[in-house]
Amino acid sequence: MAKKTSSDARKGLTAADMALQQREISISEFFTKNRHLLGFDNPKRALLTTVKEAVDNSLDACEEAGILPQIWVDIEERGREDRFAVHVRDNGPGILREQIPRIFGKLLYGSKFHRLKMSRGQQGIGISAAGMYGHLTTGKPVTIRSRTGPEQDAQYFQVIVNTKDNEPRIVRDRTIEWEFGQGTEVVIELEGTFQRGKWSVDEYLEQTATANPHVTIHYTAPDGKRTDFERVCDELPPEPKEIKPHPYGIELGILIKMLHETSSRKLQTFLQSDFCRVSRRASLEICERAGIYENARPKRVAQKEAETLLKALRETKLMNPPMDCICPIGEELIEAGMRKEHEAAFYSSVTRSPAVYRGIPFVIEAGVAYGGEIKEDTSAKLMRYANRVPLLYSGGGCVMTRAAIEANWRQYGLDQSNGNLPTGPVLMLVHIASPWVPFTSESKEAVAFYPEIEKEIILALQDCGRHLRRYLKRRRRKAEEKRKREYIEKYIPHIGEALQDILGFDDGERTRIITDLTEVLKNGHDG
Amino acid sequence: MAKKTSSDARKGLTAADMALQQREISISEFFTKNRHLLGFDNPKRALLTTVKEAVDNSLDACEEAGILPQIWVDIEERGREDRFAVHVRDNGPGILREQIPRIFGKLLYGSKFHRLKMSRGQQGIGISAAGMYGHLTTGKPVTIRSRTGPEQDAQYFQVIVNTKDNEPRIVRDRTIEWEFGQGTEVVIELEGTFQRGKWSVDEYLEQTATANPHVTIHYTAPDGKRTDFERVCDELPPEPKEIKPHPYGIELGILIKMLHETSSRKLQTFLQSDFCRVSRRASLEICERAGIYENARPKRVAQKEAETLLKALRETKLMNPPMDCICPIGEELIEAGMRKEHEAAFYSSVTRSPAVYRGIPFVIEAGVAYGGEIKEDTSAKLMRYANRVPLLYSGGGCVMTRAAIEANWRQYGLDQSNGNLPTGPVLMLVHIASPWVPFTSESKEAVAFYPEIEKEIILALQDCGRHLRRYLKRRRRKAEEKRKREYIEKYIPHIGEALQDILGFDDGERTRIITDLTEVLKNGHDG
Repeated sequence: MAKKTSSDARKGLTAADMALQQREISISEFFTKNRHLLGFDNPKRALLTTVKEAVDNSLDACEEAGILPQIWVDIEERGREDRFAVHVRDNGPGILREQIPRIFGKLLYGSKFHRLKMSRGQQGIGISAAGMYGHLTTGKPVTIRSRTGPEQDAQYFQVIVNTKDNEPRIVRDRTIEWEFGQGTEVVIELEGTFQRGKWSVDEYLEQTATANPHVTIHYTAPDGKRTDFERVCDELPPEPKEIKPHPYGIELGILIKMLHETSSRKLQTFLQSDFCRVSRRASLEICERAGIYENARPKRVAQKEAETLLKALRETKLMNPPMDCICPIGEELIEAGMRKEHEAAFYSSVTRSPAVYRGIPFVIEAGVAYGGEIKEDTSAKLMRYANRVPLLYSGGGCVMTRAAIEANWRQYGLDQSNGNLPTGPVLMLVHIASPWVPFTSESKEAVAFYPEIEKEIILALQDCGRHLRRYLKRRRRKAEEKRKREYIEKYIPHIGEALQDILGFDDGERTRIITDLTEVLKNGHDG
Repeated sequence: MAKKTSSDARKGLTAADMALQQREISISEFFTKNRHLLGFDNPKRALLTTVKEAVDNSLDACEEAGILPQIWVDIEERGREDRFAVHVRDNGPGILREQIPRIFGKLLYGSKFHRLKMSRGQQGIGISAAGMYGHLTTGKPVTIRSRTGPEQDAQYFQVIVNTKDNEPRIVRDRTIEWEFGQGTEVVIELEGTFQRGKWSVDEYLEQTATANPHVTIHYTAPDGKRTDFERVCDELPPEPKEIKPHPYGIELGILIKMLHETSSRKLQTFLQSDFCRVSRRASLEICERAGIYENARPKRVAQKEAETLLKALRETKLMNPPMDCICPIGEELIEAGMRKEHEAAFYSSVTRSPAVYRGIPFVIEAGVAYGGEIKEDTSAKLMRYANRVPLLYSGGGCVMTRAAIEANWRQYGLDQSNGNLPTGPVLMLVHIASPWVPFTSESKEAVAFYPEIEKEIILALQDCGRHLRRYLKRRRRKAEEKRKREYIEKYIPHIGEALQDILGFDDGERTRIITDLTEVLKNGHDG
C-alpha cells in the first residue's frame, strides 16, 4: 500500500528520521516568527501597535486604581527616519518592583486572563510583544520607570524577553530619582514608519479620546507637534464587576474542569456559587432535571454525568447575565463619537441588552449617522470599538464588518450591492463590550465570527436602520411635497385660464378657483 | 497628580493588590479561551478545521517519506446531529510510538517550526488543537492508530492535552492488531455542523485534490455518500529543499541570535554557511563593507557591530533565493484548477520568480479566468491557496483579497468600484508557496499584510490582467465588427434603392453597387 515513487531522486524519510526532527517550540520563538499575529507585519502598523499596547495598559491600570487617567505619549525619531523611541507615561498606581520584569519581559503573563472582568488588555501578551519587536529590530531593551507613590522609591529597569525560554532577562535594575510622584513610564525603541491619516497613531488616539471622555492624553509627534486631548468628564465610568461564567453556552470540557477544581463540596452549592444567575432554586431544578443528587460531590460528577448536567444547565430557564459586569459607552456618547468624525443630518444609536456566547456575556452598541457632511459617493464608513478601544486594522476579517454587510440596508432605503457595505453618506459605529472579547488574532484588531455576536450586531444595526428608514421616508415625503407645490404653482395658472375659457368665468372667478384648487391640491392625500 | 475620583463607591486597587492577581498563562489555557484563533469559532468551521489539520498532516508525512499519498476521510454522525467523529487515515510512514502522545497531545510541538522548508503544517499546533477542541466539546480523547511498517507492531493511543500545563495525558496505550501495513489514523470526536457548499469539507477536499494532482482521497460524508478523488498524476512533486535564511530582510535581533548560536568560528564562514546565496567572495565583501575583520569571532561581533554588519548585508548585491526550496503549483495546473471550478472562455496564469520577505523566500502564482460559464452579475470570485492548501475562511482579512482589489482592473477592461473586487464573469486564483507562510492567525486561513507579498500578488494578477485586456479588446473588436456587418446588411438595400432613385440605376446596377458597397464597408478600417 505504501508505494514508493518511481523517481529515485526522491529519498523518503522514515518515521524514525522524522522523530529526530520533532521539537518543542517556545511561545516566544513562536511569536517572533509569527510577529504579524501580534500586529507587527509592517512598519507603520508596528508603531501603532506599540503605542496602543502601552496606552491600553495605562488606561486599564488607572481605572482599576480609581485614578482619572492622564497619559503622555511621545514619539521621538532616533537618528534615522525609520527608527523611533515610543515613550508612554501615566499617572497610574505604578508597578511593584518584583513584578516589572515579568510584566514587560515575559509573554502570557498578566492579571487579566484568569478572570471574567471587562478590560482593554486580556491576554498578557501585548506590551511584552511590543518590547520583543523593538528588541528584534533595534537590539535595544525595553526601559521602564515606575513608582507606586511619592513615599516610595522610583524603579528603573531595562528588560528583554529571552526568546529561547520566554523568561525576562534583566539588563539593568536600579533605584532612581524621578520627578513624578506616581505612575509608570515605558520606553520602546523600534523600527517603524510614522504617518498621519488613516490607520495612524493620531487616528487611534483621537478615537480613544472620543470613546473615553474621562481620559486626558498629551501627544507629541516626531515632528514636535503637540496635541492635547483634554477630558470632558471628571468622573470615571462605573467599574465593571468581575463575574462568574453564565451556564448558557458553557462547554462540556470547561464544565468538567470547573467540577474538578471547585472548592464547593456539594453539586448544589457548586452550581449556585461558581456560575452567575443560578439561584438556589434554579440549582435544585438543574440537579433534578439531570437526575443527580444535589449533595453529590462535584469531583464524582465530573467523571460520569457531566454531559447530563450540561444538558440540564442548558434547558433550565435562567436570567441573562447581569449588566454590571459590562460598562457600555452609552447611546449619547456613541452619537457624540460619530459627530466628532462627521457632522451629519441624522443620528441614531442603541445599546442592546446583554447576550451570551460560550457562557460569556457581552453587550453590543451601534450607531448610524446619515447625510450632512458625510461623503456621498462611496461605501459606508464603519468605526469599530472593542471595550472602548478603537479597532483600526483587519476590518475585512471582523464580524462587525460582515454583520454590517448582512444587515440588509436596502430594506431601510439605502443602496447596497451583494456582499458589500451600503453606499451613500453613511457612517456606522459598532462597539462590543465584554469581559472576554474573542479577537481573531493576538493583535486584537478584529472580532471573531461567533454566531451569537454576529446576530446581536445585526439586530443593533437594524434597530438604527429602522430609525433611518423613518427619517429617509420623512425626508422623501418632504421632498415630494415640495416638488408637488412647485408643480401646482407652475401649472395652476394655466388650468385657471383653461377653465375660464371653457366655463366662461370672469377674472375674479378665475382667481378664486385658482386659490381654491391650490389649497385643495396642496392639502390632498399623498397617494 | 494621582487624583482619586470623587465617587466613593469606586475603591481603587493599589499596585500591591494588582501584583496579587498577576499570573502565568499556559499556552493551552490561552488557546482554550481563544479557540477561535485556531479556527473553532463556529460549529461548521470547527468540523472543517479538524478535517483540514488531519489531512494536511497526512499529506506532509507522505510526501516527506516519498510515498504517493492516499487518504481516507470519514465523517460519522455520533447519535446527535451536532456531534461527529472525524476519521482520517493515510498510507504514510507512521509515527514512532514515543512521539505519538506529544504530536497529538501537546501544543507547539512538531518538526516543521525550526527549519525553513515548505510544508503545509508549520507551527506544531493544528492537530493537537483539533483534539483539544474535540475534548472540550465532547469530553472524548483523541484516538490514534499508527504503524511504521508491516514488520512493526501497530500502536493504539488515546490522548488528551492537559490544559493546565500543555502536556499530553495518555488515557490508553497498547499494541493492537491492525489490518493496515503502514500509516496513521486519527479519530477526533467533536461538536460541529455538517453542511455542503461554500466553506465546506467538500469544497476543501475538492480544491485540495485540484492543487495536488498526485493525491488520492476517499471521502465518506455523514450521510454515507462516498466521493473518490483519484490522483491524475503518478509522480510526487519535486521535494522542496530546506534552506538557510536569505540576508535581505533579516532582522537585527535574528542576526544577533544567529551570531550567538552559530557553530562557525569565523565571521566569514558564518556568513557563507548560515545564509543562502552568500558566496565566499560576497562574504568577504560584506566583512569589508562593515569594516569588521573577516576572522572575527561571531559571538564578539554580536555584542558590538551587529548593526553595521546588518547594514552591509542589506547593501551587498546578492542573488535572489534559490527556486528549489519552493515547489509551485505551476501555470498549467493553475489553469486546470480554475477550469475544474468553472468552464471559462479565457484563461491566463503566471508563476513569478522567487521574492523575499524578512529573509524568507516565497513565490506567488496567479490565474485569471473570464467569461464562459462564470456568473456575470456578481463580484469576481477569488480562490486562495497557501502551500497547495486551499484557504476558505477569513478572505476579507487576507492580503490576497486586498491585492486583488488594489490591482486596478479598470485598466484591464473590467468594471470595478472603489474598495471592491471587480464585477463580471471573473475567477481569480492566487497561490503563495514559501518555507514560511505568514498567516494572520493560528488557524492559517488568511495571509498577513507584508508589503513585499502584497506587491508580488498585485504584479502577478496584473500580468494576467494584461492578457485579459488583449483578449477583451479582441473580443470587443469582433463584437463591433459583427454589429457593423449587421448594420450593413440591414441598411445597404435601402441605400441601394435610394441610389437607384437618385442616379437612375437599373436593378442589375443596383445589385452590383450593393455588393460592392457591402464588401468595401465590411473590410474597411475600424476607425
